[in-house]
Amino acid sequence: MRATLLERFGRRVRVAMVGGGIGSYIGETHAVALRADGLWDLVAGAFSRNPDTNAATGRSWLVPPERTYADHRALIAGESVRADRVDAVIVATRPSSHAEIACDLLAAGFHVISEKPLTDTAADARRVAAAVSESGRRLMLTHCYSGYPMVRQAREMVARGDLGRITLVESRFAGGMYAADTPPGSWRVDGTEGGVTALIADLGTHALHLAEFVAGRRITTVAADLARVAPEHVAFDNAYLTLRFENGARGRCWSTSQAAGATHGLAVTVHGDRGSVSWDHDTPETLWWRAAGEPDRLLTKAGPAATPAALAASRFTAGHPDGYALAFANLYRDFACALLSEALGEDPSPYLADLPDVADGVRTLAIVEAAVRSDAAGRPVTVDT
Amino acid sequence: MRATLLERFGRRVRVAMVGGGIGSYIGETHAVALRADGLWDLVAGAFSRNPDTNAATGRSWLVPPERTYADHRALIAGESVRADRVDAVIVATRPSSHAEIACDLLAAGFHVISEKPLTDTAADARRVAAAVSESGRRLMLTHCYSGYPMVRQAREMVARGDLGRITLVESRFAGGMYAADTPPGSWRVDGTEGGVTALIADLGTHALHLAEFVAGRRITTVAADLARVAPEHVAFDNAYLTLRFENGARGRCWSTSQAAGATHGLAVTVHGDRGSVSWDHDTPETLWWRAAGEPDRLLTKAGPAATPAALAASRFTAGHPDGYALAFANLYRDFACALLSEALGEDPSPYLADLPDVADGVRTLAIVEAAVRSDAAGRPVTVDT
Amino acid sequence: MRATLLERFGRRVRVAMVGGGIGSYIGETHAVALRADGLWDLVAGAFSRNPDTNAATGRSWLVPPERTYADHRALIAGESVRADRVDAVIVATRPSSHAEIACDLLAAGFHVISEKPLTDTAADARRVAAAVSESGRRLMLTHCYSGYPMVRQAREMVARGDLGRITLVESRFAGGMYAADTPPGSWRVDGTEGGVTALIADLGTHALHLAEFVAGRRITTVAADLARVAPEHVAFDNAYLTLRFENGARGRCWSTSQAAGATHGLAVTVHGDRGSVSWDHDTPETLWWRAAGEPDRLLTKAGPAATPAALAASRFTAGHPDGYALAFANLYRDFACALLSEALGEDPSPYLADLPDVADGVRTLAIVEAAVRSDAAGRPVTVDT
Amino acid sequence: MRATLLERFGRRVRVAMVGGGIGSYIGETHAVALRADGLWDLVAGAFSRNPDTNAATGRSWLVPPERTYADHRALIAGESVRADRVDAVIVATRPSSHAEIACDLLAAGFHVISEKPLTDTAADARRVAAAVSESGRRLMLTHCYSGYPMVRQAREMVARGDLGRITLVESRFAGGMYAADTPPGSWRVDGTEGGVTALIADLGTHALHLAEFVAGRRITTVAADLARVAPEHVAFDNAYLTLRFENGARGRCWSTSQAAGATHGLAVTVHGDRGSVSWDHDTPETLWWRAAGEPDRLLTKAGPAATPAALAASRFTAGHPDGYALAFANLYRDFACALLSEALGEDPSPYLADLPDVADGVRTLAIVEAAVRSDAAGRPVTVDT
Repeated sequence: MRATLLERFGRRVRVAMVGGGIGSYIGETHAVALRADGLWDLVAGAFSRNPDTNAATGRSWLVPPERTYADHRALIAGESVRADRVDAVIVATRPSSHAEIACDLLAAGFHVISEKPLTDTAADARRVAAAVSESGRRLMLTHCYSGYPMVRQAREMVARGDLGRITLVESRFAGGMYAADTPPGSWRVDGTEGGVTALIADLGTHALHLAEFVAGRRITTVAADLARVAPEHVAFDNAYLTLRFENGARGRCWSTSQAAGATHGLAVTVHGDRGSVSWDHDTPETLWWRAAGEPDRLLTKAGPAATPAALAASRFTAGHPDGYALAFANLYRDFACALLSEALGEDPSPYLADLPDVADGVRTLAIVEAAVRSDAAGRPVTVDT
Repeated sequence: MRATLLERFGRRVRVAMVGGGIGSYIGETHAVALRADGLWDLVAGAFSRNPDTNAATGRSWLVPPERTYADHRALIAGESVRADRVDAVIVATRPSSHAEIACDLLAAGFHVISEKPLTDTAADARRVAAAVSESGRRLMLTHCYSGYPMVRQAREMVARGDLGRITLVESRFAGGMYAADTPPGSWRVDGTEGGVTALIADLGTHALHLAEFVAGRRITTVAADLARVAPEHVAFDNAYLTLRFENGARGRCWSTSQAAGATHGLAVTVHGDRGSVSWDHDTPETLWWRAAGEPDRLLTKAGPAATPAALAASRFTAGHPDGYALAFANLYRDFACALLSEALGEDPSPYLADLPDVADGVRTLAIVEAAVRSDAAGRPVTVDT
Repeated sequence: MRATLLERFGRRVRVAMVGGGIGSYIGETHAVALRADGLWDLVAGAFSRNPDTNAATGRSWLVPPERTYADHRALIAGESVRADRVDAVIVATRPSSHAEIACDLLAAGFHVISEKPLTDTAADARRVAAAVSESGRRLMLTHCYSGYPMVRQAREMVARGDLGRITLVESRFAGGMYAADTPPGSWRVDGTEGGVTALIADLGTHALHLAEFVAGRRITTVAADLARVAPEHVAFDNAYLTLRFENGARGRCWSTSQAAGATHGLAVTVHGDRGSVSWDHDTPETLWWRAAGEPDRLLTKAGPAATPAALAASRFTAGHPDGYALAFANLYRDFACALLSEALGEDPSPYLADLPDVADGVRTLAIVEAAVRSDAAGRPVTVDT
Repeated sequence: MRATLLERFGRRVRVAMVGGGIGSYIGETHAVALRADGLWDLVAGAFSRNPDTNAATGRSWLVPPERTYADHRALIAGESVRADRVDAVIVATRPSSHAEIACDLLAAGFHVISEKPLTDTAADARRVAAAVSESGRRLMLTHCYSGYPMVRQAREMVARGDLGRITLVESRFAGGMYAADTPPGSWRVDGTEGGVTALIADLGTHALHLAEFVAGRRITTVAADLARVAPEHVAFDNAYLTLRFENGARGRCWSTSQAAGATHGLAVTVHGDRGSVSWDHDTPETLWWRAAGEPDRLLTKAGPAATPAALAASRFTAGHPDGYALAFANLYRDFACALLSEALGEDPSPYLADLPDVADGVRTLAIVEAAVRSDAAGRPVTVDT
């Protein structure tokens, strides 16, 4: 079906990248992810504000010099007049610049693939959401962990009722990156970018998205305890959130850079009254399914009991891990299929069902801001949606 | 040294049990634990208010009929006049009866081994604490999980500074015992015993004690979110606590019977700015030691890097798990040694250093009550100590 | 039922120990195991050939001086004339002395609890087997790992056909105790005790027994590759065995002291054509049950899917590990119940069904000797039974 | 450096595929792997002997119809006369056709990327080795698991002496694919392809390569026990191999399709006299490093203690699994860099150091054939190299 879409469209989807120059980890990650299925061609970019880095990045990816632009405005200007203009643009810059770049790209008619968090404030996020609406273009937010087969399986098991009534939701992104020391230039905590919520928005939106994605319901109320565990940090480096969800479920979300010793620290568990599913990014190819009154089952991607969503998200047989790159690639694959479907006059919605979008970006930032209000007030507050 | 104490004293410590009759899980558990090291003789008891159960329990343990008493008062009366009277009495009844029984026993000059929670209210707990003081007798509270070698090692590693400055403490006792259904007679949630905090005191005091025991510092402030996840429950069945500790550390504690699918659910992790230790009762013979910037180490009881506390608490070589019985037995062993030392005119304090006592009982119940106040008020409250 | 046996008999089973003096790890292990269920009284012994150690050991266990004997002959002489003579004697000396001691005890009418390996040669083992027959007494061989609830569950699952036709059996006791260096006095490899098979009999008989115990069938043919991996070792320190079992199953068994880094190294997996069970002593409270075409299940002792054998062998609820002491204690408990039943004129066989006995001792040593013959001949050989 | 090679060469390496048509798992796997780093363009192929499948596969990958050839001969004929002819050809057909296709391609001047096993007999494998020599072209054998960062780290740790003297090597590829039932068309066991060694060559060469790759030494002697565990299988479905390596190390290798319940089953452990490394494809992003006398360390890809080889083989930070696709991609990346270096007149050898080649293909098949001889003779035999 994907192959058919590509074949009928006759070419790959063309994409440019803003940011992501050599030395930026995120650029190479997107490049690997978008290549995996042969559905995208990276043919243009404004990779860095540093002209040398920009040019070197373009050369390294075989992007022609004339499509290696100085900045996103030049990219818009240059691409808009080409017959082979790019269809979509990846925004892989710092969060505080996302809103302007995304709005400009959408206004110019490009689809947008935005790194998360969508922006650095909920207000800006709402501005981007409005731009999406007005433009009629699509925005995919790269909450990449939702692309793992077993995360999608967990979501599907919840949705189809395997767990019964959903009761309790635990999520965390609890790393230790700045626990022992904080290297110079750590913008997530040094106050130079994104304000006091830079870190907890960066980590927290992943954990909050994961909780809502798997639990299949929205967070409505937050009670927060925010801290600067390392006294030298300007931004909060630890956020304990106690949550209420739609339909009565409760939960917790922990985002931190101070969990010394953690390898990665992203995980989610959803409990229902008939069992629980538990996924941990340290072992992402498996999912614990603990049905009440039955032995624990270790589900594997593409193994027995794999759901349709898991099978669709995996390229290999059981025992062959897809890994992070192909989890991320699932977002690119689904988004490509959605764009190709639409271009062919077909319904893109099946490809969009699991993709994080601008609404997720707005909501997760609203929760982060609710957490700040709650922490200041010393009481639970309602998420402003 | 232990052998020497026993040899010099010339006999085992004599103990009776109140409660714990046949069919009560806890009685057999204490019996196994106290036998393990050959330091105790169980020679008397008032095992059940049901005369048949009481007699049958006595016979099954070879307790003579004349020392199988109708209730704790008869036991006190009978034992007090014997030359071979028991030295100590185990209180293994329901929490609401602990205070009266313990106070009576202490007043009559017996040492007390009390099941946890110490009582069902902090006020009663303080009454027992006063009785301990007045009697000059000792009370050991069986927070049995603190007897595991690797729990004691974790505490020791924190205390000697391996983790650096202690920053974040996670603990939980998150089981699923009443998630899918609640059997008739579940006093922890049906409101017949211990009020609305019966369950969260039963589970929560273990998790709170473990947090304080390993972290080596006291909880001072609590922000709680309490729930009746199963609508039919009278008592709270889920407690999310966000905590502040002495010396600035923060943490969380989760107590629940609604974590469907959990095997046991007791665990503790302490983070410092130089690393973390993580212990889980599902794999109790090991301890993850994650030093910042170093590979994760899986420490084993009696293996390389075992601390003196771990070695002292283990009877076997590495790879031979002590298990729950010997963890529990460590409490009995230490308490016996303390009583023997004292009887021989020696300093018992080395044997008391790791033993949960009446102060732990008071404090953990005070935290539970603070949680109730916090939940009602919708704001953090100070623990009343 | 056990309680009833004890109650009806009116006293505990009386036992003495030969060997196991202070400083010997094995003595304390037996002492803990036999105390656990309150079915035995250790009242006599010949704990050491060193008089001081012997006396000190007796005192430490409150064994009266008059029942602390110089050697097993004195013990036989002393106990035989007492009204309260011991019922059984534990043989916890070096393997090369087992045969003589066991034969003497049996001839004097004592039941025997023998440490493994039964002796150091198959010929001596057969001599003990004959002595058991002639005496009408019982001998229990302490292959203690077979007492774990999940080992017994594995055996039961195989026996009742859950795995289908049994095809492949893997077992190992692959430790690293002498990999990096060999401490002075290491009799298992220095040639001073038990000849060239001292180590592989010590470890190998455990692994071979476990394979036969769980698979429920006997080993018939062995192809062996034996080595002295550490050049200074006199005894073999590594044994690779390729096996054939009755009924066509095949398998392997690996015994070594050269697996550097191993914690313990005992494990067994049995495959049938419908699934496999896998048990590892590093995580002894669980059993992986992998049914073909179904998700892996992690079975826990006393949890859902626990078999009658597992439940009977566990004293605690799921999540409360029995550990090594109570696995060992299960052998003592079953043996006590068998002796009590017999003394009460009842059928002891239910209590003997899972207990390692003299025949196991003969057969595992015959396999070890077959391995030596195979290694020398460079071809598979039949086990001489 | 890789970027520089590509940039200086000015284009990607062009590749065709023989076999791998739609419905063949292996074709899509190679396609994903070769795309990952943007170093290859798949531009031609003879994907299937079925014309419809062949055409559909070409279209699905946007390969032009004129470069979608009927078979490998047509491909050679067509590509040889093009200015933009492919540089290399992937051979992804059944093993029995590899030799002819590879020899033809090499003779025509194409580099070859061959699926494993290299051929179905050692004699044919030697024929291919000769063709490589004569052609001056390169052949990479896709023992893809050797591309995992932690497999390469294990090899590097062995090579640099971390483990001390290498003593014992365990490897296995023990799956359960045909344990419960054998689907029609299972050529690995039904005798239609590759003779009696079809399965044990398919699985066994992976396990044997992995053992030699990590241990850094060659297998010299084999004692084998081969079986048809499922009576209906024509080919052997279970192979137990006891091995001797150069320099005195010993080991075992187990290849089977009868390990019911296994997820994947590939694993390797190497012991030295100072410690061991253990890798299991079920958890491929980690490596257990067990130094004698030190706590077990769980090494993670790109985490603390990552070696240069591991870092070079990983694209993401610690905690972000590369997975199977990027392990496979590492082979493609290294091979592309070797070809680009050579084309630019530079030394390709650094890129070839870890790549499986034709000699590995010859040797692993020679070991499989030695196993057949050993099994028939009932004694160990020397590998014929």
